[in-house]
Amino acid sequence: MTPTIELAQALIRETSITPEDGNCQPMMRERLQRAGFRCEDMNFENVTNFWAIRGDSGPLLAFAGHTDVVPVGDESQWTHPPFAARLVDGYLHGRGAADMKGSLAAMVVAAERFVEAHPDHDGRIGFLITSDEEGDAYHGTVKVVEALKARGDNIDMALVGEPSSTEVVGDVIKNGRRGSMLGYLTVHGRQGHVAYPHLADNPVHRLAPALAELAATEWDQGNEYFPATSFQVANMNSGTGATNVIPGEARVQFSFRYSTEVTAEQLQERMRAILDRHDLNYRLDFEVKGLPFLTDEGSLVEAAVRAVETVRGRPPVLSTAGGTSDGRFIASIMNSQVVELGPINRTIHQVDECVRAADLDQLTEMYFQLLVALFVRR
Amino acid sequence: MTPTIELAQALIRETSITPEDGNCQPMMRERLQRAGFRCEDMNFENVTNFWAIRGDSGPLLAFAGHTDVVPVGDESQWTHPPFAARLVDGYLHGRGAADMKGSLAAMVVAAERFVEAHPDHDGRIGFLITSDEEGDAYHGTVKVVEALKARGDNIDMALVGEPSSTEVVGDVIKNGRRGSMLGYLTVHGRQGHVAYPHLADNPVHRLAPALAELAATEWDQGNEYFPATSFQVANMNSGTGATNVIPGEARVQFSFRYSTEVTAEQLQERMRAILDRHDLNYRLDFEVKGLPFLTDEGSLVEAAVRAVETVRGRPPVLSTAGGTSDGRFIASIMNSQVVELGPINRTIHQVDECVRAADLDQLTEMYFQLLVALFVRR
Repeated sequence: MTPTIELAQALIRETSITPEDGNCQPMMRERLQRAGFRCEDMNFENVTNFWAIRGDSGPLLAFAGHTDVVPVGDESQWTHPPFAARLVDGYLHGRGAADMKGSLAAMVVAAERFVEAHPDHDGRIGFLITSDEEGDAYHGTVKVVEALKARGDNIDMALVGEPSSTEVVGDVIKNGRRGSMLGYLTVHGRQGHVAYPHLADNPVHRLAPALAELAATEWDQGNEYFPATSFQVANMNSGTGATNVIPGEARVQFSFRYSTEVTAEQLQERMRAILDRHDLNYRLDFEVKGLPFLTDEGSLVEAAVRAVETVRGRPPVLSTAGGTSDGRFIASIMNSQVVELGPINRTIHQVDECVRAADLDQLTEMYFQLLVALFVRR
Repeated sequence: MTPTIELAQALIRETSITPEDGNCQPMMRERLQRAGFRCEDMNFENVTNFWAIRGDSGPLLAFAGHTDVVPVGDESQWTHPPFAARLVDGYLHGRGAADMKGSLAAMVVAAERFVEAHPDHDGRIGFLITSDEEGDAYHGTVKVVEALKARGDNIDMALVGEPSSTEVVGDVIKNGRRGSMLGYLTVHGRQGHVAYPHLADNPVHRLAPALAELAATEWDQGNEYFPATSFQVANMNSGTGATNVIPGEARVQFSFRYSTEVTAEQLQERMRAILDRHDLNYRLDFEVKGLPFLTDEGSLVEAAVRAVETVRGRPPVLSTAGGTSDGRFIASIMNSQVVELGPINRTIHQVDECVRAADLDQLTEMYFQLLVALFVRR
């Protein structure tokens, strides 16, 4: 039983369904305080957050993460009780084991070890922990970062403990995320009887060629770190249900995942231009869910790659694929370097979420080596 | 109060919701028998039909119609009780007044007058009456026509009393109907997360260009009597409801209304060729609801036009627009000449169905003049 596994178990045993913290953050704070961190509450509304920092000057690396977890669903389907944190055949089982109480434990233990080995380290080490990443995320990381920024505390680098790995711990580091934008298109026509098409105006027929062009459009070619921007229709419907009625309108809900080569505004403008060229009578609404960010060079990526290579013997793949995380708030508000490095994400949000215990120890070592790479003079 | 209005009232007062006849057909048969018609039951399953004929040789004109009516819906919404057959301000009110008990009364009275004036007329006059046109129509006209054909009785011409008129009685004669074919297309893709489009295959994106081509295709140019064949999507849907999921399939339900320039088989073949060219993985099913027919020349159209012109002072417009009727069975099975001539169709199938009483008397005169034009030597 290692310190990381012990702490991970203690955290999993707290029932912290988003936005609840249980007793996770007090537990983490106690450990960090003992290691010389200055801790403070940063609560907003019903969300529990804290900020901790050690060191007085130099570049600031913040470990970022969340203590809340998603609901367990039907508890009877779990092989092991989701909050029992059972260790079976080398796997630690429970809600949050991979997302992301295991990472939190690894961060705390890595920091403890590092400050013990290097009490007079360069730079500053921070912890930005929230209990609302899985929920609305309105009063969590975004509010803490805004408050820090308002008082002049800048985070230079953030290591987010989201489960970035796919097959082996450390095989993938996320060094950015694509932007995410939803859209809702309604094409208006004129309803009528299929026997009298000249008296109607079929919105599906008007939509089809425009949709074909949207689907075929190359929005950009991506770049070294981002795949090309992708437009995907997720939902579409039209019709009254009757087989002999030309519908009055057609509705399409779509999603853009976009690279740093375009902006949300450019995509909106180009989409409107296509629809206008097809002479549609339409309504189009957008909802930007997350701006893209990229940490393509600099000390953080370099140190993270070196840390993983030191522990695994192989460098990680840098990727910007996948969904969104709180990293986007830190990157966009602070203009920080941000990378995500955490355990294997195969079971996250699922029944029987689990993580290899040895992976959490490896992750602890990677976090430790990251601090060494950044803050120990060679 | 004219004989046509009196008979129409008596027929409307029979509650003959499809496939019920009430006492309509016995009433009609009694009148026809008195006028020298030979009548016989042609019942199939739960449907009441009769066939009547007068005359021994020469061309046969059959009046065709139905005694059943569509349901009344919410009776409290009717200004006048739907089976009271009230005559108010010159309008005869009630379910079936326009579709088509008014026409049935006009046919019977016209035949009575005609045989009284011309007891030794040329040709033969028939009545083909069913109680199942508004319902499934499996055991009505189609069965009677098949039985007549099986025993060698051929209908040369049929005058269907469907309400063909739009503004003034006799302004439009239907001398054919387009074919009607429904279709159901499912395009298969592969479901996935919008963040990982390379792992999925969006069926909406695959469908769009094919649908654009289908909507833009000129299937034919129609001909003198038929508008161009029309393809119309009536219903379309795809998606799981979630905004971040690429759907697994897309479904389209469409309708062809087609002219005599193409066949249902040709349309099916051409549609498959378009889908194949777009390299779709799809399932496509068709349902032919009615074959097209056209009575573009010959004694019946000529006589009907002359009859209308005699009564109105102006010839009717010939049209093949609009929905289907039992005329399609007679035309396709017997290869008969078929026209539809009846009252104004504005209120059919609606609450407060009604017809101008004077229109029914004009219609009686048109049917009478039709018989004169066909069967009285000049």
